[in-house]
Amino acid sequence: MSVTTPRGFRAAGFAAGLKSGGAADVAMVVNDGPDAGVAGVFTANRVKAAPVLWTQQVVHGGVVRAVVLNSGGANACTGPGGFQDTHATAEHTAAVLTAASPQSVGAGEVAVCSTGLIGERLPMDRLLPGVGGAVAALRRDGGPAAAQAIMTTDTRPKNAVGHGNGFTVGGMVKGAGMLAPALATMLCVLTTDAAVDSETLDAALREACRVTFDRVDSDGCMSTNDTVLLLASGASGVVPTEAELTAVVTAVAHDLTQQLIADAEGATKQVTIDVVGAAREDDAVEVGRSVARNNLVKTALFGNDPNWGRILAAVGTTAAVFEPDAVDVAVNGVWVCRGGAAAEDRSKVDLGGSEVTIRIDLHAGQAAATIWTNDLSHGYVHENSAYST
Amino acid sequence: MSVTTPRGFRAAGFAAGLKSGGAADVAMVVNDGPDAGVAGVFTANRVKAAPVLWTQQVVHGGVVRAVVLNSGGANACTGPGGFQDTHATAEHTAAVLTAASPQSVGAGEVAVCSTGLIGERLPMDRLLPGVGGAVAALRRDGGPAAAQAIMTTDTRPKNAVGHGNGFTVGGMVKGAGMLAPALATMLCVLTTDAAVDSETLDAALREACRVTFDRVDSDGCMSTNDTVLLLASGASGVVPTEAELTAVVTAVAHDLTQQLIADAEGATKQVTIDVVGAAREDDAVEVGRSVARNNLVKTALFGNDPNWGRILAAVGTTAAVFEPDAVDVAVNGVWVCRGGAAAEDRSKVDLGGSEVTIRIDLHAGQAAATIWTNDLSHGYVHENSAYST
Repeated sequence: MSVTTPRGFRAAGFAAGLKSGGAADVAMVVNDGPDAGVAGVFTANRVKAAPVLWTQQVVHGGVVRAVVLNSGGANACTGPGGFQDTHATAEHTAAVLTAASPQSVGAGEVAVCSTGLIGERLPMDRLLPGVGGAVAALRRDGGPAAAQAIMTTDTRPKNAVGHGNGFTVGGMVKGAGMLAPALATMLCVLTTDAAVDSETLDAALREACRVTFDRVDSDGCMSTNDTVLLLASGASGVVPTEAELTAVVTAVAHDLTQQLIADAEGATKQVTIDVVGAAREDDAVEVGRSVARNNLVKTALFGNDPNWGRILAAVGTTAAVFEPDAVDVAVNGVWVCRGGAAAEDRSKVDLGGSEVTIRIDLHAGQAAATIWTNDLSHGYVHENSAYST
Repeated sequence: MSVTTPRGFRAAGFAAGLKSGGAADVAMVVNDGPDAGVAGVFTANRVKAAPVLWTQQVVHGGVVRAVVLNSGGANACTGPGGFQDTHATAEHTAAVLTAASPQSVGAGEVAVCSTGLIGERLPMDRLLPGVGGAVAALRRDGGPAAAQAIMTTDTRPKNAVGHGNGFTVGGMVKGAGMLAPALATMLCVLTTDAAVDSETLDAALREACRVTFDRVDSDGCMSTNDTVLLLASGASGVVPTEAELTAVVTAVAHDLTQQLIADAEGATKQVTIDVVGAAREDDAVEVGRSVARNNLVKTALFGNDPNWGRILAAVGTTAAVFEPDAVDVAVNGVWVCRGGAAAEDRSKVDLGGSEVTIRIDLHAGQAAATIWTNDLSHGYVHENSAYST
């Protein structure tokens, strides 16, 4: 049930001393082949951490034999020196892997991911020995240990697996429910033993991310480090169609997305925003995101207030196709707003539980989308004001 | 020092019982001419309150002899019935004014503004008698009473005045520092005794709003009711140039903007974001707004944390022209980030006071803009979660 469930992968977690307290903080995932295909999706933030800039180039090269990940430092906004640190990490990983196996690995085949504090250099005197420790700890069943090592404020590791017809997809993710400090960096490594070309791999990953990770929006803040990688070993010998691969990758990404949301620190409610009746899927996403980012909606939900007026006002800030006097809004199944005005009694809405569903019918077409978010709580303010990240 | 400082205006405030506690809740501003010119700027929210829809049409007609404003109810998301209520309010105001003066006033010459709870109908049985009470209370020095009557969670009334060469501009505004409940509706009435055509009036108001009210961004939430009106009586007989009028209207709007920010409820800090070195003014505004809306930046400021990494990450989400490794950031005068990486020691930054200045140099050109915002505090969460608005 991890990145090492598919054939052809080994992984490890190691405590290098980057984090105080002795928790594991260096993870490695190695692709033993026969293929070494890769696809990647990265943060759209123009201020990108050094490991993102490095790994984008590596993925562009088309071959990844290892991913090394560290928690305890984001290596973002660290200038040319920070980029050299990432480069040195990849070089060292390649050298140690080459020494430990019959196969030669180049630095340009090593992806690097980092998460933690922004604006500070990594302690390379601890990270590089940690890389050696991780290589020594690589195991065929090391996936769970790797998932443990990439945690920051996550309260539990997050693993998932999905099965296709003769092939398997595994995955791990970190991110404390998008409400954590450190800009909620999300790092995700997906693995598959399917035999697929890089074009198919890329198409499957993009479509999976589009309807899962891309539709989680906790506070509208975009990390400098977000990275999702998909590695293919080809070890099953099975060649799925693009549709088959996409379906399984999407299922695994969806599973991981729900684990992210359920582990939301500082939040008291998990909120599902279903937008239906949209003229286009993009409209539905825009409306859902606008509601998900609206601080007045989010604080109302924290206060158990089914405040449909604030929801409607958030919808009104979008460019989606809709008529203001045609919009219906339901909160936890009660249609408190119909035709843009008050309908069922809002006192009927039960917001006592931790799960909230907001349904918005734009009455403008047949398209729909779902966005997941959280409430805005005292816990969020506390988490993000009390600790420098 | 109010809307009645310019010649040709009377105003009043009256307690009609819309708000509990007996505070004044109906305000009126009457233009006694000789001119009755008007310009208006309204919320860009597509979900517009009934009084906004009404007043847009009235302003389009080009003549406004009276503005009636109520607190205690926004009349937003109230359907066709809500629009009829606004219409009835204008009709009643016109009738009472016509009966009380030699001049005949039409309903189409009466602007209506409302602020308060969304999604509920106004108590017309109290509002209409309140209109009568306000007309009876109209005075040449009634401006301060009107400013008092439009307050919601404002802790103090907000008035301003500015002088041109032979003409005067007065103004009042309500809005509890953009951090209040009720979507922080901002209502503003500006008056002038200058003799100007409606085209000049419109140009002056738009330019003034563009660099004042439009650059306040507390929580990214856009009200359904925001309205800024500028009335011209011509009573001074002075015909200023567009530039002269714009300068004075802008000065009054700037004064009122600063009063809004200083009255921010639920906020502990007033934050000024100066963006300089931008390729275009629009870029500077986009960057400033992105930082102003970033919850991670805002919670960091609440926690007295000069977290420049979060500021840089917010800048990175914009489409402005800049190179990530060329951006400098100062917090209260300390350049904690230069060239996109750590510079001066962040411990030098003093965030103990209530005023914070963030300066961002994009090093991409000569344009600049200032955005004003607040921190994101426990008070904000409390205000907006504990009370349904």
